[in-house]
Amino acid sequence: MSDSMRLKTHYISLAHGNGGRYMRELIEQLFAHYLANPLLNTQTDAVSLSLNGSDIAFTTDGFTVNPLEFPGGTIGSLAIHGTVNDLAVSGATPKYLSLNAFIEEGLAIEQLERIIKSMAEAAQQSGVAIVTGDTKVVPKGECAGVFFATSGIGIKEKNINLGLDQIHTGDQILVSGSVGDHGTAVMLAREQFGLKGSLQSDADSVYPLTKTLLELPGLRFMRDPTRGGLASVCYEISQAINQEVHLFEHKIPLHKQVESVCEILGYDPLYLACEGRVVAIVAQQNAQQALSQWRQLSTGKDAQIIGEIRKGSAHVVLETELGGERILQELEDDPLPRIC
Amino acid sequence: MSDSMRLKTHYISLAHGNGGRYMRELIEQLFAHYLANPLLNTQTDAVSLSLNGSDIAFTTDGFTVNPLEFPGGTIGSLAIHGTVNDLAVSGATPKYLSLNAFIEEGLAIEQLERIIKSMAEAAQQSGVAIVTGDTKVVPKGECAGVFFATSGIGIKEKNINLGLDQIHTGDQILVSGSVGDHGTAVMLAREQFGLKGSLQSDADSVYPLTKTLLELPGLRFMRDPTRGGLASVCYEISQAINQEVHLFEHKIPLHKQVESVCEILGYDPLYLACEGRVVAIVAQQNAQQALSQWRQLSTGKDAQIIGEIRKGSAHVVLETELGGERILQELEDDPLPRIC
Repeated sequence: MSDSMRLKTHYISLAHGNGGRYMRELIEQLFAHYLANPLLNTQTDAVSLSLNGSDIAFTTDGFTVNPLEFPGGTIGSLAIHGTVNDLAVSGATPKYLSLNAFIEEGLAIEQLERIIKSMAEAAQQSGVAIVTGDTKVVPKGECAGVFFATSGIGIKEKNINLGLDQIHTGDQILVSGSVGDHGTAVMLAREQFGLKGSLQSDADSVYPLTKTLLELPGLRFMRDPTRGGLASVCYEISQAINQEVHLFEHKIPLHKQVESVCEILGYDPLYLACEGRVVAIVAQQNAQQALSQWRQLSTGKDAQIIGEIRKGSAHVVLETELGGERILQELEDDPLPRIC
Repeated sequence: MSDSMRLKTHYISLAHGNGGRYMRELIEQLFAHYLANPLLNTQTDAVSLSLNGSDIAFTTDGFTVNPLEFPGGTIGSLAIHGTVNDLAVSGATPKYLSLNAFIEEGLAIEQLERIIKSMAEAAQQSGVAIVTGDTKVVPKGECAGVFFATSGIGIKEKNINLGLDQIHTGDQILVSGSVGDHGTAVMLAREQFGLKGSLQSDADSVYPLTKTLLELPGLRFMRDPTRGGLASVCYEISQAINQEVHLFEHKIPLHKQVESVCEILGYDPLYLACEGRVVAIVAQQNAQQALSQWRQLSTGKDAQIIGEIRKGSAHVVLETELGGERILQELEDDPLPRIC
């Protein structure tokens, strides 16, 4: 292993994909190390490019889910929403998508058709067009049914300046709806724990939510809490701004069913993926207005102000209803089922 | 299966990925059927988008190769060259790439490092930057080491009008170098046939080749003959223009080693993938000039005029040195090892 490599293991493990420390190290020490260029920033959802004077956002995401279909979506709709959402939270209007499909020999064409249909519906609903694509078929056993990768191009308005570097002490933290629904719904769909439930994934386009906030003053930063969940987004913020991210536990919207499943299985819902939620950081004086705007949208009706940025050390502090405090750590090894 | 589906099988087979008829049907009848929109055209390498008045090209490609490293490249450099080349043959200047990596649990990090290094070198050499990326780790057994998907953005000059619809009777067919080197090199790298060889893949950026032709008059159409090889590109042309694509067998550049390996294994080298060649259709009066420009480039020194567009039925006719004729059919089932 070269000097540049400080990865502590010699082989890839599932923990390298969980949205936590191992993944960050893999990306920083291998991919970003060798592929470095002035535009590559591993901390953004979408890169801003200036092409002949037009500002565009460009992003990409890969999708592997087991099972391929779950209550509230399929790997196909997820491949649309995931990339649409990365563009949306960067402040862009999602427009054009590319699609890569790695399809496993033996996959039933009927199932593939259902997946492509749900993808088409999600694209139409999100206002984006798939304009270029590629398919590869791989031998049986070489991919779990189908993997998708989508890249997206969005249009950026001038004068939108969002980023971790825009966050200040006192800023408020909003979440657009309940957390952990997607992760829990996918787990339940596996039926491997003897649990069943009616819970739907939250997978959806967040563009209506981001568009609303972009029209208001005081917006600093947005992110969709996918892999690693709300806790991982907050951890990343705390590290980037070197201040305390302070969360009020009783304000975090959580479905009863998510809470129960997590209690039974020993998961922390704050680390479970959402696929249709936004975490937004908004200036204190604008937070209430942002909240009420969100609540007027069907996808934002359960929105809450869940915390604030405080002077202090770079930690995520979860304040419980009784006034106790718990530090939310960076995700280490992989305690979670892979769900996105 | 719905009425819209005319696919004759119920399950995905490897033939659905070989660049031939099954693949075309899968794409036309499933993906393009449901995802249809005015910009999606399954016959182009890259789509042209107009963003606030700027013309860009956008394309995507997926990469699965066994083995991951071969003489002349790795799956990493291939993931750069493949997408760079799709942009280049569309007449664009390749600029920005997105990268998706599906990495298998258990992959040696040393090997991944070599692959990423070769990717970085290929990007630098091709003048493109990877500006956004995503990694997913999948459980052991769910992908063959690593799959990549890259999407690319290129800048298009105004007034470039290339396409199958630009081709006329009498136009000449050029190829920039020997065919089937990549396919053969990858087969040899597997060492499963008891064959070994020194043959290098032709994998490379074709941008210098396409740039040269764009500066000349009379250019109609360009394509890189990847999956399905030279024969499949010619077949596609013959169908699109409903005329005869007439090839002179003795003019087609072919390495002795490729010929020998194909003879032993019973493959037709005209169907084997290239990853650094261009097939160009040029007006008759400009063909010699195009040829001599190509031959001044290191990647075009073996270029040849290999055929012409003739009035006649929509077939690819291969004229042998002795004056015999053979029809090159569309690739049907998968007689070839999967090599890209």
